[in-house]
Order: sequence, then structure tokens, then C-alpha cells
Amino acid sequence: MSAQSVLAATLVEPGRYELREYPLPDPAPDCVLVKMEMSGICGTDKHTFQGYTTQYGGRQLEFPIIQGHENVGTIAAIGGDGTYTDFEGIPLRVGDRVVVGANISCGQCYYCRHDFPYYCCEKTTDYGNNLSAKHPPHLFGGWSQYIYILPGSFLVKVPDDLPSEVAVLTEIFAVSVGLDRAKQMSSFPSESFRFDDAVVVLGVGPLGMCFLMKARMLGAGTIIAVDLSDYRLEFARKLGADHVVNAARTAKSERLQIIRDLTHGRGADVVIECAGVPAAVPEALEMLRLSGLMVEAGNFSDLGEISLSPHRHLCAKNVRILAVGGEEPAAYGPSMRQMARYQKHYPLREFVTHRYGLRSVDAAVKKSIEPESIKVVLEPWR
Amino acid sequence: MSAQSVLAATLVEPGRYELREYPLPDPAPDCVLVKMEMSGICGTDKHTFQGYTTQYGGRQLEFPIIQGHENVGTIAAIGGDGTYTDFEGIPLRVGDRVVVGANISCGQCYYCRHDFPYYCCEKTTDYGNNLSAKHPPHLFGGWSQYIYILPGSFLVKVPDDLPSEVAVLTEIFAVSVGLDRAKQMSSFPSESFRFDDAVVVLGVGPLGMCFLMKARMLGAGTIIAVDLSDYRLEFARKLGADHVVNAARTAKSERLQIIRDLTHGRGADVVIECAGVPAAVPEALEMLRLSGLMVEAGNFSDLGEISLSPHRHLCAKNVRILAVGGEEPAAYGPSMRQMARYQKHYPLREFVTHRYGLRSVDAAVKKSIEPESIKVVLEPWR
Amino acid sequence: MSAQSVLAATLVEPGRYELREYPLPDPAPDCVLVKMEMSGICGTDKHTFQGYTTQYGGRQLEFPIIQGHENVGTIAAIGGDGTYTDFEGIPLRVGDRVVVGANISCGQCYYCRHDFPYYCCEKTTDYGNNLSAKHPPHLFGGWSQYIYILPGSFLVKVPDDLPSEVAVLTEIFAVSVGLDRAKQMSSFPSESFRFDDAVVVLGVGPLGMCFLMKARMLGAGTIIAVDLSDYRLEFARKLGADHVVNAARTAKSERLQIIRDLTHGRGADVVIECAGVPAAVPEALEMLRLSGLMVEAGNFSDLGEISLSPHRHLCAKNVRILAVGGEEPAAYGPSMRQMARYQKHYPLREFVTHRYGLRSVDAAVKKSIEPESIKVVLEPWR
Amino acid sequence: MSAQSVLAATLVEPGRYELREYPLPDPAPDCVLVKMEMSGICGTDKHTFQGYTTQYGGRQLEFPIIQGHENVGTIAAIGGDGTYTDFEGIPLRVGDRVVVGANISCGQCYYCRHDFPYYCCEKTTDYGNNLSAKHPPHLFGGWSQYIYILPGSFLVKVPDDLPSEVAVLTEIFAVSVGLDRAKQMSSFPSESFRFDDAVVVLGVGPLGMCFLMKARMLGAGTIIAVDLSDYRLEFARKLGADHVVNAARTAKSERLQIIRDLTHGRGADVVIECAGVPAAVPEALEMLRLSGLMVEAGNFSDLGEISLSPHRHLCAKNVRILAVGGEEPAAYGPSMRQMARYQKHYPLREFVTHRYGLRSVDAAVKKSIEPESIKVVLEPWR
Repeated sequence: MSAQSVLAATLVEPGRYELREYPLPDPAPDCVLVKMEMSGICGTDKHTFQGYTTQYGGRQLEFPIIQGHENVGTIAAIGGDGTYTDFEGIPLRVGDRVVVGANISCGQCYYCRHDFPYYCCEKTTDYGNNLSAKHPPHLFGGWSQYIYILPGSFLVKVPDDLPSEVAVLTEIFAVSVGLDRAKQMSSFPSESFRFDDAVVVLGVGPLGMCFLMKARMLGAGTIIAVDLSDYRLEFARKLGADHVVNAARTAKSERLQIIRDLTHGRGADVVIECAGVPAAVPEALEMLRLSGLMVEAGNFSDLGEISLSPHRHLCAKNVRILAVGGEEPAAYGPSMRQMARYQKHYPLREFVTHRYGLRSVDAAVKKSIEPESIKVVLEPWR
Repeated sequence: MSAQSVLAATLVEPGRYELREYPLPDPAPDCVLVKMEMSGICGTDKHTFQGYTTQYGGRQLEFPIIQGHENVGTIAAIGGDGTYTDFEGIPLRVGDRVVVGANISCGQCYYCRHDFPYYCCEKTTDYGNNLSAKHPPHLFGGWSQYIYILPGSFLVKVPDDLPSEVAVLTEIFAVSVGLDRAKQMSSFPSESFRFDDAVVVLGVGPLGMCFLMKARMLGAGTIIAVDLSDYRLEFARKLGADHVVNAARTAKSERLQIIRDLTHGRGADVVIECAGVPAAVPEALEMLRLSGLMVEAGNFSDLGEISLSPHRHLCAKNVRILAVGGEEPAAYGPSMRQMARYQKHYPLREFVTHRYGLRSVDAAVKKSIEPESIKVVLEPWR
Repeated sequence: MSAQSVLAATLVEPGRYELREYPLPDPAPDCVLVKMEMSGICGTDKHTFQGYTTQYGGRQLEFPIIQGHENVGTIAAIGGDGTYTDFEGIPLRVGDRVVVGANISCGQCYYCRHDFPYYCCEKTTDYGNNLSAKHPPHLFGGWSQYIYILPGSFLVKVPDDLPSEVAVLTEIFAVSVGLDRAKQMSSFPSESFRFDDAVVVLGVGPLGMCFLMKARMLGAGTIIAVDLSDYRLEFARKLGADHVVNAARTAKSERLQIIRDLTHGRGADVVIECAGVPAAVPEALEMLRLSGLMVEAGNFSDLGEISLSPHRHLCAKNVRILAVGGEEPAAYGPSMRQMARYQKHYPLREFVTHRYGLRSVDAAVKKSIEPESIKVVLEPWR
Repeated sequence: MSAQSVLAATLVEPGRYELREYPLPDPAPDCVLVKMEMSGICGTDKHTFQGYTTQYGGRQLEFPIIQGHENVGTIAAIGGDGTYTDFEGIPLRVGDRVVVGANISCGQCYYCRHDFPYYCCEKTTDYGNNLSAKHPPHLFGGWSQYIYILPGSFLVKVPDDLPSEVAVLTEIFAVSVGLDRAKQMSSFPSESFRFDDAVVVLGVGPLGMCFLMKARMLGAGTIIAVDLSDYRLEFARKLGADHVVNAARTAKSERLQIIRDLTHGRGADVVIECAGVPAAVPEALEMLRLSGLMVEAGNFSDLGEISLSPHRHLCAKNVRILAVGGEEPAAYGPSMRQMARYQKHYPLREFVTHRYGLRSVDAAVKKSIEPESIKVVLEPWR
């Protein structure tokens, strides 16, 4: 198999892709080679393309990078003795369809030993992001015909009844595990997130869309989606939003009034902030009722500062805030099984709106930035 | 009893007290008259005196006001059939020593019916604060020889082994119930507030001092107190602080480094913000380790805004914030019993550092603002 | 209105109903008269009819009793000034359709003051159960043309889009609030009840059926229903069960094997015990995986004892058990709104399978005991 | 170093110890050799000696066994490149004093991957228990001059200010992490374990004694210890019990009355069952108030069944039960640091009441079974 070469869209610096060739590697022991079927374009990918390369409060990226961490593919080769077990204990074989866990944790540091989320790991690395293509075997992202799986990674088998264009949402849907945590953060019956609570989702790009679905699956009542794009708001309705508000055609004061009108004047029980712009944070807090809960999942890259009143936005509201840094490995399997289950209620196959081959990576990323798209993917086999 | 008159320190406008006389009322049914023994001066009292009269995100005070909501006294008369039950179900009699619940909830609004904290009640009123002395029977604060207890209030009997100068701390100690809530806010074993966690208390005025004690009682490990006053820091040590940092003699960057040095470079597991200045909020977040917990209990009055980075301060830290708006009635009894228990370990009788009669109310409030005081009280019987 | 008389099915002793006439009362202040539209027959009603009259671990019933605590009707008259507010703060008027809260709490005892569930109230009373018809105005149950609402009760307005035959399920559906509590009982990510967890419901009478729906609404994965009746199991499938097991045609060992086969050999993550027979308790524990959660909601009347191994059933399994004593007032409104929402997915209008007039109360109760029924109701206006 | 031989007390079958010699091994890569300083005798050790060899709901032990899993010693040699990191990330060196983690988890099974407690691991093994001395290098228990640490184990460095006779309590104290979990199991403010709650500890052998201390450290109010031995009850008082009840001189009905008398007639908020006899389980439930919490940590070996009423003991009490299967690695470090801290308040150095050399192992185990002992240890260097 070794003499072959592999094509990969390679970001040589912010704003510039090159289609490069790499040698097809044999997987070492504890490693796997996965033939890519589909790879999503994530908000972080766009930010990197646009030059926002500061992540996790300071980390800098090393170019060139093969992007792509929302990956579905089939196992092409397994290193060592040819055995490999998926995250949930299922033995994997060549030909099996899998989702690739986006990150690798060391398993040995204080944070790993104490069951912290992966992004707390002192040596965390992640596919399609901070693993540079400079170093062999190079293929550390999904915008490539093959991806090389390093020791310490995790793979999760895709259920047979889950199409790949839904499975490709697994990683981003798994980030909504923040809502599961929110469900447990109550010390009071009155503390949200409760059954039938009114939930606002600020920003229904793909991540907000996943949080919206998850809110419904966990027992939300009235769900209100806010976004700049009618295209996205229309799809939010199909995924279960009861009301939508176009933020391009409303002032902030109007939006606050709409939320109050829909909630007996009290404000939302829960606001999930996925807008990806700092200014959405104070607005989210102002939309909340007293003792409400804000889930912050929108600012994975550093886009600036905002002004807050500790009294008015925090103390006087008795508010709780949960900032979500990412997903958890244990959320992949449940996410896939539940998306498979809810296909019959929600049009999940329409979530991927645009598909491109590797040669069109530039067009693909630009399309993903446009408001008239939901999830844009690359199909590296094209 | 009715022909008597009652003296009360009355705040006629910000910055100006008058000693006024009021008629001694007979209590109506469901009402009680309490002879005051001791009443604490709270941060809110100082803010009102200084002219910060916006509370709970917008509420305005109506002058004149008899301040004082940290109240210990003895029952002088019970209205109606002469029976009255304390919050925990104990029958009360004339002569019983009680702590007066600081607030009155309506019990009927959405928030009351759904077991929200009292400060969410749509009609919440509170002694010594937003019940104006303009309206009869006038005596709605503790800086008076008698306080008049309205229907819907609650009283809690003081245990015999608890001296009044400790019982007077009950209301403020009860605010630390926020830490009990924090203890339940974990969805992860790794989420604080855990046994042996490193806890920073920013600002050890009386409220911060109570949070510090409570943190120890709930299983904190290393406790670090930060304040501008050596006088307060010395007392914080006596109440269980392992380390103290004088913020008047250190730059913010030095303080952050000290915290990291004491926590294996990771940052504090929990930061409790009681400094009462907005600037302490971003500093508190920066002191936290990844996935840490910030308890915000310092900004009960509106003192301005601060600048935050949603990425750096929130998302990239995977942080949780619990903003605490006040105490809960159910926390009074436990607070008294535990302070009685821990008297043998902590010098709780030294917590009240200065005592004044009603005539010296002006001096008392000024003393309470000085850094060389902990809790300052009025003894209205003097 | 007062000269009229009211017909009510009256249980004069276990096993014997009489149709009696009572005077139509005028409601006193804080009281309400509700014209009954529909009243469900509950497991407790059957047990009382059969002579199991010991409740809440010792309480004895006083006959005669007008049963019926799952009540929907319209407001016929409001006492006092004619104003009345529903539990969620909505003003009510004559003609409004309401669900009647099944219980009255004193609001003053230790348990009420500390926000315990109503069945902990030291003076709890409940309609259709321990309020005897011996005492005027007699009409304290729903199997009557009118029900008399005492002070301290609560009413909840029925949403316009919720048919009465679904609204009648509100009280029993509200008992599934135990699952909301279970959702918060996790100290570990691994502790159930998690998103996508495998849930077994033992016994799908009306209560088990409600727990089954609620489990799905809160994010359950595979749901397995176990019952003696194919009739009920078939309806369980319509409400979302993925698998059903007929306990009349399987041995216990077979059932345990079926559960293991459906859960990768591990056992169920959650078992909800609603079978109403003591023997189901050890079976429920044996169906659980390690660290699983059992919700016990099936033994509201005393039907005997079972044998357990503290080692094998508890310690060695690291299990958690939540015993649910009943519903909560705050669960009524959310239950109604969510049943209204989910009508489009589930055939909730088929839940009520049989309807009877007051004259057929005996036949109605007997039908409700048969396995070929789900919810049986009385329509007192017939 | 290899020519040396090592003495170890070896249990060749229930009831019979032999002092055997084994070759001193060189540690393989990822392995460590620890020179034993002190090893505790645990309840499980006694049960194995007495012939109760069924554990974890079915597992059988393979003889001969070198017992001892509560181990303190110093590092004698490190395999491979000589580097080794303790559980909390601290580099270890020859001569460092460490506590040895009692168990080894596979890290790869479903349970390990999903952050379950170690005793859920599908391949869990534990020192001094199910690692037979039949297999080389034999030294898998602490009642030996040296213990051999296998890959996947964990060591925790002992703080300098913690004497070894306190450090030897680490493993058993760590089991009280169940109380930390209990603290998070509340979905209601009314649900225990709350600040100032009344806590009963049934059985104050070493484990119950640790739970008692932990309850105090986490904010318990009144603590009541129940045991058959005055000797133990006296020590329980020194560790913070407010009341003690000798179960040898009281009938069950008297004990229930004593608990009610101490709790305003309501019953205990929390009962921690550490008696190690099945009959204590129903008594524990009967001691609880409504909505109370029972922690079951006493039946690690199978000692028989008990009879329970699902109605009276569970549903009618609205009770919660947390069964604790063991400790967690993450609890070792906090346990050591907090025991070091609380040495000044509690006489922790008196906890170890008897010390024996390896030659007296038989006498040591018999002493540990007697009521006139707390923790009995072996000092293998004698």
C-alpha cells in the first residue's frame, strides 16, 4: 500500500490553501489509517482561515495545517497486531465506518487523571488544528484522502442506520454535552435548566443548531432562535424552534422585549450563546430572568472584549454561567445514536447544505462563512 | 404599653441621620414587636449612606429609612392570639431571643411558588432598606429601640449557647449559603467546589470573612485571603486562612503569580469575590484554574462596569460562575447552630470589633467603612 | 345557586359505593367551586377500594370518601371578592378550565418552610383520599358533579390546545418529576440518568406510561417496557418504547437476560419501578448495571415486604435509589404544556381508554383493575 | 539487589497464615518496588480470613494471598528509565514516602473510558486481595517487607507533615468520598446532605470513624455514633461525635426513639451505614426522616439478606440511597492533606491502636476483630 500518494488541502498560511501530495503511511502500532468520506467545516476552521490563530486563551498554531476535525471515514489499515477497540469497547475492523475523535489527551497529567474535559489536558492536541502537517506522517486533518490516527486517539463506530451526512455532525453535536452538564448544575428546583423551560439560542449556525436540538431532546419548552440569517432561522424552525427573531432587522431593545413578551415578562430561563461575537454575551445575560442560566459556547477564538456590570448582569440577577470549552469523548456515541433516533422527527439530512471536493476548498470555506449555509462539508474522495 | 415612645436613628437622606421619636405600636394579628439588642452595619447600609441607592438592578429607596437588617432582639409582644412559630417550627414567647429575618416574601408570585430565593419575589421587601419609615408603624429597621415585624416575616430563635454578638452575624453568614449551592453545582467530579480545593477569598470584609469560614466548614483545603487591610487579613488568619495577600502592596500580576505558586501553577479551584468593587471580577476569573468556579457575591450595589473577554475569561477557561443575590431563610438556623459549634475553634466573639449607641450612628457607619474594623454594630438600648 | 343538590359517588367502606346527594355549597373566601368534567381512577383509588387503606407509612382513611384526585373541571364560583390566582400567577375567572392540585400543604411546618415535597408536610391532606365526606361541605373528591376547593389548594389553568382527556393525566404525569430529580442526582458524568441511557420501565400502567414518556422527553436512549399485559405493552410502543417484554410469559432469569442482551451485557442504566408489587424491587436492582440508578415509584400502598442482599443488591453494585413519594405543584404547568406539545408525536388522546358516568363507578373501578385498560375516567356530568 | 529474599505473611487458605520467603525482584519498566513501612488491616481482610471470599457480587479469591491494601512505604527502586510520576503529577524518587493505590484499573473498558469508579472496571484487580501470590513476582500485598507495583497502578506522595500512622488511613478515609458524592446528589435544597444536617453513623469501626470525620469536615451538624463497643464510641467522641449510643445495651425501638428525640421528632437527615451487618440496613432506613439520605458502605462482603417494605422503607419515606462500592484514586491526595490539616483538632495519631510484626499476623487479625481496637496495623520491617 506504501507507494501510493495522498492528496490533502493544506493551509499554508491564513487565507491560502494548496493541494499537496503526501506519501501514504503504514500505521505504526496503536495507530490507524482512516480513508476519509466526509469532513465538516467548523467555526474554528473559518477563524483560522481568517487569521484568528489564538486559541485556548493563548495557544498559537503552527503552519502548514491540514484542517478538518469533524471526520467520518472507513478504516483502511490498523497498525500493530491489527486489533483496535472503539471508545465504547467495540472491536473495529478494516472497512468499518467510524467518526474520529477530534482530540488526543495525554491521560497522565493532573487534569486527565482527575477526569477533566480534554481541553484541560496539559498536552492536548487536536486533529485539523494544532497538529502541523510539517511533521511526518503529515496527515493530521480530515481535508485529505486519508487521516492518520495517533496513539491515544479515539474512534467511535457509526451505527448502520446513521447516514454519513448526519454522522459528520457528531463532533459538533457532542459539544452540546454542555447542556447535560447544565441539567446537573441546579442546586434548587427553581434553577434552570428545568423541564419545559423557555430557552433562547443566540446564533443558529451549526453549533447553535445542535444546542437547539439538544435542548428539545432534554425537555425544553418554548425555544426561541435568534440569528442574522432568515435561511438559518427557517431551518431552526424545522429543528424545533417555536419562535425565531431576525437580529438583522431588530434593535437589541426590541429583542429583549420580544423575549419578555414570550415569557410572561420574566425573561428566558436559559440562554445559550453561540453567536460567536463578544457583544452577544451581555445581551444573553439581559435576556435572562432572575436566577436564570447562561451557557456560553460561542467564543472559541479571541474576538475582543465586552463591558459588563457585575451588579446588574450578575449579582442582581442571581445568575449562573456555564462556559463550555468543547465536547467530551463520552458524548460521541450517545450523540450518534440519538441523531439516528430523531431522524424521523427532524430533517437531519438537510443539515449539510453544501458539499465540495478538495480542489474547491477555498470556495467551500467561503460558502461556510455565508449566512445562506448551514453545515458545509468536504468530500475528499471526489 | 402604647403611650411610650421609641427612639430610632433615621436616615433622612444619603449622608444625614436624625434621631427621631416614634410611638410604640401594639402588634396587629400575625405581627410581633421585638426589643432590639444589637444590629449590624452591612455593606448595603454603607452604600445607601454614600448615595448608592440603586439596588436589585433598578429598585430605588424611599426616604426616610430606619436602617438595620442584621437584627438580634427579644420578643416584646405578639399580636393576635399571642402565639407565633419560628421558622423551624418552634413556638415563641415574650422574652425569647430571636434573629429577625431580613426580608418578607409574598409567597404567592411565580417566583415564591416555585421556591426561588426571596430576592426573586416580585414583591420582596426588606427591613432596614426598602420599607420606608414614612409609613406607620414606622419601625421597620433595627437601628431603633424596637422593630415591628410584619405578616409574612420570619423569626428564628437564638440557641442559648450563642452570644448575641455572634448571633448578629447570622444574616450575613447565611449569605454564604451560596457555597452550599456551589457544592451542588458540579456535573463532574473535577468541578469544584471539591473537598480540599484551593479557595481564594477576594475581600475579607464581614461577608468575605463569613464565606471564608463557610469554605472551611464545607471542606476547603488551602484558603487564601486577599484584602487591602492588614487588620482584616490578620483576623482572616484566625478564622482559618492559610495565606494572606495584601492587595495594597501588590500589583495584580504579582497576586496572580502568588496564587499560581500556591496551586502547582494551575490557579485556584474556587474564587469567591466579595471585594465589592467591579475590578475584582476579571481578576477573580484570571486567578481561576481551568474549569474552576467563581462565586460572585460582592456587587450588591451598582458601582460600575468592567471589561471581559468572552473567549479568554469564559470559554477558554471552561469556567462556571454563580452569582449570589443574598441569603435564604432556611440558612438562618443552620448558620446559628454552626457558629455556636465552631466558637471553640474560631474567635467568633472578636468578629464584632466596635459597638455604638444610636446617638453615635454617624460615627458607627464611618467606622464600618474604615479598613480597621470588621463588624460594627449598634446597640439601640444604650 | 344554593338550593341545588349535587350527586357524588361515595365510597362508604372498602368495596362499596353509594350514589349520594349533597347540598351545593357557596364557596367561602379563598375557596372555589369547580364543576367536574373528568376525573381519573388512580392506583391508590383501586387500593382503597380493595381495602389497602394504610398510606404514607401509617395514615388511615376515614370513610365515607368521595374519591378522585385527578381532576379537570371549570370554575363555577369563586368565594370572597371573586378573585383567584392560579399556581403560576394567572388570574382565574368563572368558566375557566382548570386542573385541581391533588393536595393541600400547610405552608407553615418545618417541611413546608424548607421546600420539601408536599407529602412531607406534617398536615398534608389530599382530595379524593383523606378528606372525608363526613364533614361539610363534603365535596372533597372529583367523582362528584362539583368539587369544593379549600384554602391553601392550588389550581392550574389548562392551555387551550390541551383536550380534557389529556389534561386529566396531569397529576399522574407530574409524578414523573422524580425523573427530573434523578437527572440532577449525578455526582459523576457516569452516573445516570444520562443522555441516551438505556431505561427499563417495570410496569406500564398509567404511572409507568407517564414515566416512559417523560424518560423520552428528557433524553433517554433505548427504552424497554415490561408488563403483564400485551394491551398495555402495545400502547407503550406507541408512546416510545423500543422494546417490550411480557412478564407473564417470561421467567425472571429470562427477563434479566433480555435486558443484558439489549445493553452490551452491562444491564440497564436506569430502572423505573412502577409495577406496584414488592417483588419488582429486587428484580429492578438486578436489571441495573454497575453504578446504575433505580427510581422507585410503585409502592404507594403497603403490599408487603421483600428480601434484599445489602451486599449484592446495593454495595457491590454501587447503586443509587431514588424513592418518589408523589408529584409537586410546580410540575403541573410544565406537564400540561409538554403534553400539549407532544400530542403531535404521541397518541395522547388514546391514553384514556374507558369513560363512565357516576352511576357506573363500580364498573369503572373494576375496569381500571383489568389489564385491558390504560386510564379509566369518570365523567360526573353524564 | 536481586539475591536478597523477602518475608511476607501469606494467607494460604482462610484462617491459616504462613510466613513465606520470596525472591526480591527488580522492577520492570513502568513498575516500582516499595519498601513497606506500615499496612492496615481492613474489614475485607478479616472477612477473607473468616472465609467470606465472595466479593463484588460474585468474584472468588485465588489463594495463597499476601493481604494488605492500606499501604505506606518508601520507594526502593523504579523500573525502566527510573522516572515515575505520582497520581497528582509530582515526580517521584527513590526514598520518597508514598501511599500505594489499592487497585489497578484497565483504563480501556467501557467503564474506565466513561469515568466510572475503579470497582466498575471490567478487569479491576486489587493489591492484597485478588492478585494471588501464586504468580511471580508474588509480592502483591502489603503484609510483606516489599510490595511490587504493577503498570497501571498509582502512587501518591505523602506530605511531610503527615505521620505514617495517619497516612496509613488514607485508603479507608478515601472511601468516604461517597459523602462528597452525596453532597452533590441533591435536586432539592431540602435534600440532604445539607449544612448542619443531623448525621447518624451506624458502626464506628475504622471505616465508620472515617465517615464520621468526613461528615464533620463537610459541614454536618449533630453527629450521632452507634456501635456495640464503648471503646470505639469513646474514640468517636474524640473525632467529633456529639452523641453516642451503645447498641449492645439498647433495643432497636429505643435507638429509633433516641434518634427522634435528638432531631425534633423527625429522624436523622442522613444515616451512614458502616456496621457491616445486613440487619443494620432496615434500621438505618427507619432512623431517617422523610426525604432523608442513606449512605450504604457497610456490606463489602456478602453476609446475607434482609427484609424490607418497598412502601414503608422507600416510597412512603421519599428516601434516597447511595451505595458506595469503594474509594477513588482522586480522593487519596485530598484525604492526606486534610488529615494533615485536621491533626490539630482531632487525635488522629491515636487512630492506630495496635501494631504488630509479620510474625504476629494471626494475633493482629484477631485483635482487629475485637471491639477493643480501632485500626490495627502490621509493620513489616520489624
